[in-house]
Amino acid sequence: MANVLRNSAKFGFSGVLSQLSIHSRHGRECVSPCFSLQQRNNSTSPKIKVDLDSSTGVAVLRMQSPPVNSLSLDFLTEFCINLEKLEMDRSCRGLIITSTLSKVFSAGLDIMEMYGKSPERCGEFWKAVQEMWLKLYGSNMATIAAINGSSPAGGCLMSIGCDYRIMVDNPRYSIGLNETQLGIVAPFWFKDTLVNTVGNRAAELSLELGLLYSAPDALKIGLVDQLVPEDQVLSTAQDTMSKWLAVPDHARQITKSMMRKQTIDKLLSNREADITNFVSFITKDSIQRSLRMYLEMLKSRKA
Amino acid sequence: MANVLRNSAKFGFSGVLSQLSIHSRHGRECVSPCFSLQQRNNSTSPKIKVDLDSSTGVAVLRMQSPPVNSLSLDFLTEFCINLEKLEMDRSCRGLIITSTLSKVFSAGLDIMEMYGKSPERCGEFWKAVQEMWLKLYGSNMATIAAINGSSPAGGCLMSIGCDYRIMVDNPRYSIGLNETQLGIVAPFWFKDTLVNTVGNRAAELSLELGLLYSAPDALKIGLVDQLVPEDQVLSTAQDTMSKWLAVPDHARQITKSMMRKQTIDKLLSNREADITNFVSFITKDSIQRSLRMYLEMLKSRKA
Amino acid sequence: MANVLRNSAKFGFSGVLSQLSIHSRHGRECVSPCFSLQQRNNSTSPKIKVDLDSSTGVAVLRMQSPPVNSLSLDFLTEFCINLEKLEMDRSCRGLIITSTLSKVFSAGLDIMEMYGKSPERCGEFWKAVQEMWLKLYGSNMATIAAINGSSPAGGCLMSIGCDYRIMVDNPRYSIGLNETQLGIVAPFWFKDTLVNTVGNRAAELSLELGLLYSAPDALKIGLVDQLVPEDQVLSTAQDTMSKWLAVPDHARQITKSMMRKQTIDKLLSNREADITNFVSFITKDSIQRSLRMYLEMLKSRKA
Repeated sequence: MANVLRNSAKFGFSGVLSQLSIHSRHGRECVSPCFSLQQRNNSTSPKIKVDLDSSTGVAVLRMQSPPVNSLSLDFLTEFCINLEKLEMDRSCRGLIITSTLSKVFSAGLDIMEMYGKSPERCGEFWKAVQEMWLKLYGSNMATIAAINGSSPAGGCLMSIGCDYRIMVDNPRYSIGLNETQLGIVAPFWFKDTLVNTVGNRAAELSLELGLLYSAPDALKIGLVDQLVPEDQVLSTAQDTMSKWLAVPDHARQITKSMMRKQTIDKLLSNREADITNFVSFITKDSIQRSLRMYLEMLKSRKA
Repeated sequence: MANVLRNSAKFGFSGVLSQLSIHSRHGRECVSPCFSLQQRNNSTSPKIKVDLDSSTGVAVLRMQSPPVNSLSLDFLTEFCINLEKLEMDRSCRGLIITSTLSKVFSAGLDIMEMYGKSPERCGEFWKAVQEMWLKLYGSNMATIAAINGSSPAGGCLMSIGCDYRIMVDNPRYSIGLNETQLGIVAPFWFKDTLVNTVGNRAAELSLELGLLYSAPDALKIGLVDQLVPEDQVLSTAQDTMSKWLAVPDHARQITKSMMRKQTIDKLLSNREADITNFVSFITKDSIQRSLRMYLEMLKSRKA
Repeated sequence: MANVLRNSAKFGFSGVLSQLSIHSRHGRECVSPCFSLQQRNNSTSPKIKVDLDSSTGVAVLRMQSPPVNSLSLDFLTEFCINLEKLEMDRSCRGLIITSTLSKVFSAGLDIMEMYGKSPERCGEFWKAVQEMWLKLYGSNMATIAAINGSSPAGGCLMSIGCDYRIMVDNPRYSIGLNETQLGIVAPFWFKDTLVNTVGNRAAELSLELGLLYSAPDALKIGLVDQLVPEDQVLSTAQDTMSKWLAVPDHARQITKSMMRKQTIDKLLSNREADITNFVSFITKDSIQRSLRMYLEMLKSRKA
């Protein structure tokens, strides 16, 4: 595989733009299928709202950062602080993650965090992405993603970081790790989490082609566990959570750790190298040029 | 995952008893879904009966220890001695394991071996459980489980230790590694065997929730290979065995070793630590209290 | 597993011949299900034909070595030279592999390369088999197998070395790693590739029993990705290829490497030992006797 990069200069992002326009032409929801762009907003209004029901021990975390719950550094920081608080709160045993936005769960990593930023800032951003996954995949709480809209790339990562996934039964909503379509590569721990969820072959096909699965297709390959009508996503998540919480916590937690520890340890022992890789890749001139083209395309589409 | 035990003190076996009564309320067979309790019986009548047909090279091992083929130290010792004899017998090429009891294949590990026993005795017991699995999962014989009744916990482990599983097509019979439901944790080699059989994600869900699958559901996730009517379990096992024995033995054996060696070696090189872990866990005051509650519940249910 | 070879002397190839005759009696295509025998032919006519469409960047490699595209040393050498040429050609991005023969994709390794040959020659042959797989499984090109006929043993290995498999929707065509049926053992890298494709349990069953799957059954377990009518295999492969080539090459290539590198590295670091194993096994008297019986059976079948 020494010459794996042989062709990398040959074909840039040429296919990407046409890909994206085809995407919207076909009538899917116009969530940018990988990165998302959203207006900067320096207000201190929270991007995340958490309600903990102390009678049930179940917290609902609502992502409320319009237009598409982009995973910016601010968003991720707020997300992780909330997660940590709940993790420390002995009255909280279960966590449901959902979105307040129409049609989108989360559109994934915020492209603005990767475009025209210093290497230091890019590194800080990537560390926050790692942190989000580490906290979620290794959480002691029972975690359920109530996926009430599209969930590409980083949104998909967040979903497969949970213990269980319930998605709206609507073929217009899609989910998947579609990074390859944009000319970038999902890092090894995205890949490991996907393999753990759907198996090696489905993950291989999915990652090499950067596939986005409609909700019904996602159910078929096991990327989500259950489909329900739009108005039942949250109530189903609550019902399902009560089954998870009927299991003695410590036995469930040790079992979860046994299943996930190896995957988590792999990132923990390669964390700095993973940040370095990301920063050196994303700050390349060719990648920055592609991101600019992509941003301009997104802007012109809005206009 | 450092704080995986954070909540362990918070929630004990509280959910377990209600869980169990729900279980029986729903009309399933009243096989204790994980551990089993059976009257002590110091007779020397064999708990296992073996018939080897020297014309076919196929042995049928019948478990006949009422009421539920609990895996006690005596039972396991007898099981392993029989297995070893067959393994050494060059006229024996195939082994079918089944039960003489109505409605139950094996209800799993005998709770009486874990309650009020000395650490030494607990360690001896656990070593016998390991031995049963090591001998079965690594057997040179072609091995088929003819699962003619429910098969929770240790009964499930015995089943997935075989090469092929045929179960009665009856939704009232269930199978699964349901340890978590009782507040205990299936050790890594139970987990590895389950992952090898049903894949990582099904194993994760199954172990974290301690799921028992009805026969049809077990077929769906690949926990068993085939369902047949009750009166055809043994004959189907015999027919299937003749297909296995049509394959040249040495090629099948080397292939089996290639598939299973890594999983077996993992226990072999951690055997003492695994025993120590089990003994220190099971002799804890909190666990012994839970076992007592569980025993009392089983007794009152009988009354 | 120390005594895994215990029975190896007991049962030779006794079951194999009857197996094979049963096979043909049931009306399957009479492709030798594992090794193939074909008339020696010292002509220099190419066994492989390659057409590269420079407008699309897609090469079609046609295997045209009658009667059954046996993988002889000459065939494999020609195959690897062609693969290398395409890999170096920057205008070639995708490769479709198919057969010009009726009813057979490839019948697998040429038995004549293993019968009555010197250890040196056997070693040279096995190195070429390794090389074929290494080049294919690690190719930078998008690779699609257009499986227009039966594809046992080495033919199956070639298929699962590709990125995607399209097979003729005809139950008379079969595919699988059926080595065990002939008393030989698929080496670890055949096994690893199969596990990566169909998962651990299906691979275990498949390899221990040496199963050949009809096209519909192959689709069910994921051994092939898609079935189409006979006259649409190549056109479907071309259409599918255009989807693969819509993905930016370098991202797809790095992702492919991430998925397959570990499996490839395992052979690379055990290459010599794997050759030694093969040579010492295949040159055994008992194996050579079995191959002679097999050859005589094939000859008498032809007569």
